[in-house]
Amino acid sequence: MKLYDCAGAPSPRRVRIFLAEKGIAVPTVQVDLRNGEQLTESFRRINPDCTVPVLELDDGTRIADAIAICVYFEAVRPAPPLMGSDPQDKAIITAAQRRAERDGFYAVVEAFRNFTPGLKGRSLPGPDGYEQIPALAERGRARVLRFFETMEAELAGRAFVCGPGYSIADITTLVTVDFAKRIKLTIPEASVNLRRWYDAVSARPSAKA
Amino acid sequence: MKLYDCAGAPSPRRVRIFLAEKGIAVPTVQVDLRNGEQLTESFRRINPDCTVPVLELDDGTRIADAIAICVYFEAVRPAPPLMGSDPQDKAIITAAQRRAERDGFYAVVEAFRNFTPGLKGRSLPGPDGYEQIPALAERGRARVLRFFETMEAELAGRAFVCGPGYSIADITTLVTVDFAKRIKLTIPEASVNLRRWYDAVSARPSAKA
Repeated sequence: MKLYDCAGAPSPRRVRIFLAEKGIAVPTVQVDLRNGEQLTESFRRINPDCTVPVLELDDGTRIADAIAICVYFEAVRPAPPLMGSDPQDKAIITAAQRRAERDGFYAVVEAFRNFTPGLKGRSLPGPDGYEQIPALAERGRARVLRFFETMEAELAGRAFVCGPGYSIADITTLVTVDFAKRIKLTIPEASVNLRRWYDAVSARPSAKA
Repeated sequence: MKLYDCAGAPSPRRVRIFLAEKGIAVPTVQVDLRNGEQLTESFRRINPDCTVPVLELDDGTRIADAIAICVYFEAVRPAPPLMGSDPQDKAIITAAQRRAERDGFYAVVEAFRNFTPGLKGRSLPGPDGYEQIPALAERGRARVLRFFETMEAELAGRAFVCGPGYSIADITTLVTVDFAKRIKLTIPEASVNLRRWYDAVSARPSAKA
């Protein structure tokens, strides 16, 4: 088994944190996203979508999606549960993870990829060269600020995004907050609940992954 | 238990098909999206994100996300499995569902919401009024066509999106193809594998949901 990874990149970091929380070590192969290795013929044979992370199982099966990789490890090693342990928790955590991804993570992606000069013609990850859309960079920034507001309200009186237990929803939210620094957005001073939560999840050893 | 639904809308249709495949009946409450009922104060108290579907459990817990609702029912009624039954299948199906959603479903949403005159100021679902971005409508259309190409290649020699068994990845793909009609995109004549698959999944009783 091996994990195609890129140190410093937010998508594979979600998997690295998940694995650290589970106490699972997987050998990694670094893919040099900065220099476009994901777009080379040889990497396209590994993942035609030209993205990391990709988990390669021993039988050669490849899972080319961060959350799907987490689903795999949650199933093979259920403890500690990071995706819920009863039907209701599973649903609540799935919904919270997906909202953080949609309103937070993808909003940062939108702002980052449509603004950064080095990403001209790369407004979406993947093999197709879509041109940057400046209005989308603006919208992305506005959405990230709204996401911070929403999370500030949600985290009042709660240790973690879904209540008393740490989950994959915390991982997506943490990676989003750190990724947002790349578009110069940080948690507002007044957002005391979000800051308290951020300090707590960042202090966990997994956050270094 | 009840499901806030809107007949004819693609997001809740994903849940309706899933429930039909499981043989589960849930009472529904229709929300009039066409006339903006999702934006009213009374619906905001049900779901501040102003979207359907929302599943309300008997204890009042609300799950406001189509896939999270499916996760709930997959956990309470595992048969027939629509999200995989071993770790590898679960991961493969999750990855395929998410790709269909990202490259297909959301691409149609992008094209539809940024083009339709009646959706001015509503380029994203939810409570925030983001202006339409014409370039995003264009990009959305291009992405849907690319998604059709990808699926045509994937479905060669396969009964369903993830192999021999029907899964939630088929549901997302089916709903995407039908939703694309709203932006006047249909499966190209030459895409024989995608057409054969579409005819088969559309003939299942669940497709009427």
